[in-house]
Order: sequence, then structure tokens, then C-alpha cells
Amino acid sequence: PAEQPRLAAVDWGTSSFRLWLVGAGGTVLAERRAAEGMQAVPPGGFEAVLRGHLAAVGVEATDAPLPVVLCGMVGARQGWREAAYADCPADPAALAAAALRFDLPGLDLAILPGVARRDADRPDVMRGEETQLAGLLALEPDYAGVVVLPGTHAKWATVAGGRIADFRTVMTGELHALLAGHSILRHSIGDARPSGDPASPGFRAGLARGLADPAALAGEIFALRAGDLLFARHGAEVADRLSGLLIGAEVGAMLAGVAKGAAIGLVAAGPLAGLYRAAFVAAGRPARDLDADVLVRAGLIAAAGRLWPD
Amino acid sequence: PAEQPRLAAVDWGTSSFRLWLVGAGGTVLAERRAAEGMQAVPPGGFEAVLRGHLAAVGVEATDAPLPVVLCGMVGARQGWREAAYADCPADPAALAAAALRFDLPGLDLAILPGVARRDADRPDVMRGEETQLAGLLALEPDYAGVVVLPGTHAKWATVAGGRIADFRTVMTGELHALLAGHSILRHSIGDARPSGDPASPGFRAGLARGLADPAALAGEIFALRAGDLLFARHGAEVADRLSGLLIGAEVGAMLAGVAKGAAIGLVAAGPLAGLYRAAFVAAGRPARDLDADVLVRAGLIAAAGRLWPD
Repeated sequence: PAEQPRLAAVDWGTSSFRLWLVGAGGTVLAERRAAEGMQAVPPGGFEAVLRGHLAAVGVEATDAPLPVVLCGMVGARQGWREAAYADCPADPAALAAAALRFDLPGLDLAILPGVARRDADRPDVMRGEETQLAGLLALEPDYAGVVVLPGTHAKWATVAGGRIADFRTVMTGELHALLAGHSILRHSIGDARPSGDPASPGFRAGLARGLADPAALAGEIFALRAGDLLFARHGAEVADRLSGLLIGAEVGAMLAGVAKGAAIGLVAAGPLAGLYRAAFVAAGRPARDLDADVLVRAGLIAAAGRLWPD
Repeated sequence: PAEQPRLAAVDWGTSSFRLWLVGAGGTVLAERRAAEGMQAVPPGGFEAVLRGHLAAVGVEATDAPLPVVLCGMVGARQGWREAAYADCPADPAALAAAALRFDLPGLDLAILPGVARRDADRPDVMRGEETQLAGLLALEPDYAGVVVLPGTHAKWATVAGGRIADFRTVMTGELHALLAGHSILRHSIGDARPSGDPASPGFRAGLARGLADPAALAGEIFALRAGDLLFARHGAEVADRLSGLLIGAEVGAMLAGVAKGAAIGLVAAGPLAGLYRAAFVAAGRPARDLDADVLVRAGLIAAAGRLWPD
């Protein structure tokens, strides 16, 4: 007979769903990936979506409830059930201890909390990334350095002493979408998409501008429009320049606060990975690639080990 | 009989129309203000709108065509007729010489050009503001310093040696509209509007953050959202904080390039005037108020003096 699952580990974000069925010793028995992020779940539909994925990997109701550990926006106020933020600094044990636990027929559920920086001058929140960071600490307990997680709301976390010491969110991805789609730049970009190629001349030009003077961002954005008016640049080139500019400004501004010689880990997939990698090289601070799936799975499994000790 | 008009001076922007009927010696005989900016003019409708305003101030077709000098977005590609950009640095004589001239029955028209900074690394354009700056030079030929013109696309110009020596556009106003209306901040701001009060706690808090670290702007914007999530701030307070943050980041970043002791002129009206005034005071560089209407009228009349010498 197939190996009996010990738990299900679920990373449930705004726009994606990933489930791993885990056996003894952390073996992955099965995996599910779907675009059924929170945004695609109908009101009240979380349980049914989860049960559908569990059934698809052969989990059936049994006498012993299956432990299910979840992280991500599924625990936000607008998610399934709200798992209140844990305070920063936060270590993996504290995160597991703060999980929101509840039962459903055949399921023993725990939603891991996000992390909040409760500083009135510089408040910040993350939800989902903390589990990736906890996974990094599960795999490398002595990790000390910065971890960068690009995206709509990019996170820069400082990990040291076995905990998430501090973090900052930079809304680079959201700014890109706003500017390309809704600002005056839409007249220059049109339907063009960024190439995603770190070697493209537009990306390299924008990156250099952003790295050189991050504080000039709001001026450099207008210069993209002026450059099109004066030099009739192609929409695709303007899109690449915008991408380079925003990533360069983020990396340039944030590296100013990173100690020389500190390790930099980069958790990115798809085109963003190459673009950020190029940005760190251009800034003279190469980053080490970390795998988001590996990290989040390790973080979920480590939390489960604390929540359901054998 | 009423004094005979010598010319009409028209400032025709994207969202506003102003006309002055000018007599001998620059006397203002009549004035028209309307919200019929370019955006409100139907295709092909510029001549009719202009004639309507001229008729309203008693101008009728005569044997001697009336000189009409215009500036602003009316001369953009998407305006009435395109007046090509003059190159920066630009002096008022060069701007007048580059005017686009054409005739209509009873009207001798000249649309003043915008100014372009044709630098592939940092291109920039202005259209309308150059005439205000030319007006400043008409009133104060020896002016030397910076002139700041806040707005959707705020301009920072360096005026010296009787010319517009350099300038930079910062899209503070457009960023404010995008962020308040289309970003994740809309969930925190809702229908609230910024108070426009430079003494409001939200504006002051945002201003301090923006001035302190302009390069952190894309992080500080997310902190506004996090601050609402963690501290349940009112929408109006978030709106004020956003306003302060963006103005502070603009003023902080741009002042870094302004020489100590350089004169700073501020051309702003309505709530923006008070907000920017407060920003310059907070930065330790008080600005001198300049009146946009006075400047643009002086710039138009000075250009007319060059275009139609007696």
C-alpha cells in the first residue's frame, strides 16, 4: 500500500495555491499546484477547494485527522480565517506557536501567522514570506544576512541569530503595474510588455539610472515619457527601461542600508530572478539564489514538526 | 470709446483657459477664465472656443488683425497646432523666435514653444511653465536661482543669466493620484481627500518621512498601508500622510542638488502653495512666493513685444 501521509503543507497566496503531501521523515508523497489563489476562491469556498486538492492526491477521510499546515494570504483578514500577525523580531518557534488552529471533519488545521513590525514610524507587514524565511532557518540555522523576495510587494528581510530580525517592504511590482497601465507612461508603452531580458538595452539603461540615484525615481519616471516624446522610443524599450529603473531604484536604495560583506539571498522565479540577479551584479553585490518552493516547504514542515510533535 | 486692445494673451493648458485682453503699455483691459482646458475642447474646436472668449470681452472682427499670443498645451501635438520644443538652455528671445505663427480671419496668432532637454540620459520637456519663467525674467531680468512649479508634473527650473538654464520634472501630483486612486492604498484611503492643511498631523508625519529619506519612497508608500492595517488609521490621515510623503520626497531629493544659499521661488496656488511652503520651511530652505498669473501674463506680453514690435 502507498505510504501513509503524515501531513499536508499548503502555501496559499493571493494568486497561487501549492500543496505538498508529506510522509514520514519529510518525504514528499505528492504535490498540487493551481492558480486557485485566494482571489479565485468564492466566498466560503476555502474548505471545498482544500478538500478537492486533498482528494486529488488520494487523501480520504480517516479516523485519525490529517494535520494541515497553511501559510500565506489564506490567513489574512480577507482570507479563510485570520491568523493574527506575530511581532518582529520573530523566530520560527514563535511563528508556529502563534498559529491559528481549528478542526474540521478529518482535518486538524493550523494557519501560520504573518509578521508585523509594529513601529508607528515605520510599520510593516508580511504574510507568507515569513514561512520561507523560517524554512531557510530550518535548512541553514546559522544563516546571517539579507534575504530579498521580489514581487508585487518586495520584501527585504534581515535574518540573523535564528530569527527574522527586521524587514522592509518595497512596492516595486505594484508601482510597475500602476505606471505601465495607468500613468502617462501608458501612452509610451501601449500594449508592449517588458522583455524580461536583463541584457536588453532598455533594462540596462533604466537599471543604471535607478541604481545611480534612487531618490530621483519620481523624476526618472517622467524622463521615460519625455524620452519617448523626444526620441520616439519603442513601447517595448520604454517598458524595459521602466522595469530596470524601478528594480535599480529598489536595489540601490535598499543596499545603502546593507552592511558591506553581508550575505544576500535572492528568492525569485521566472524573469524576475534574472532581472534582480543582474541588478545585484551591477551594484557590485552578487546575490545567491534561493528556491522559494524549497524554502516554503521546509518552513511548513518545520512548523508542523513543532505543532504536531511525534 | 473704450481703449483699443493691442493684443490677447492666452494661457491654455490641459485643464484651464485664461485670456487677458491687453491695451497700450501692457494695461489689462479685460480677463477671462474658464475650465475649457484642452481636454474640454471638441476636435477642431479650438478656434471657436477662442473666438467665443474674444467676443465675450468685446473683440470684434476689424480691419487690423488682432495679435494673439498663446502658451501651454494648446501647442502640444494633441493640442491646436504643434509648436515644436525649443532647446534648453533657452532665453525668452529664443522662445519668442520659435513661436508657431499662423493667421485666421481677423487674428494674427503665435503659439509659444515648450522647452526640451534633449539629453538621451535625462530627457525632459515642459510646455507652459517656460512662459512663466520668461515672465519672471521680464519682471526680474537678474533673477538667479531655482523656481519650483508644483503640480501633476512638478517642474524644478534653474534660472540664471537671463535664461532657463536647466530643469527637471518630478511627477509628484500624478503619483499622488495613482496611489490614492489605484494602488493598494485605496483600501486605506477610500473616499477620503487630503485636508490640504500643512499643519495636519498626517501631512507633517509624511513630510518628515519623505524629507528624511527620499530614496525610501517606494517603501514608505507601503508603510502607509501597513500603518492602517496595524493601527487602524483614518482614511483622511492616510491621505494626508501620502501627500506629505510625496512632497517631502520631492523636495528632499531635489534640494540635494540645489546650492546652499540659492534663491528658491515657489509658483503655486491653492492648497499646494501652503503644503510646499511648509515643506521648504521644514527643509530649512524657505521659498519665496511667486504668482503664476502674474508671471505667465508678463511672459506672454513680453513675447508679444518681441513678436509684434511697435
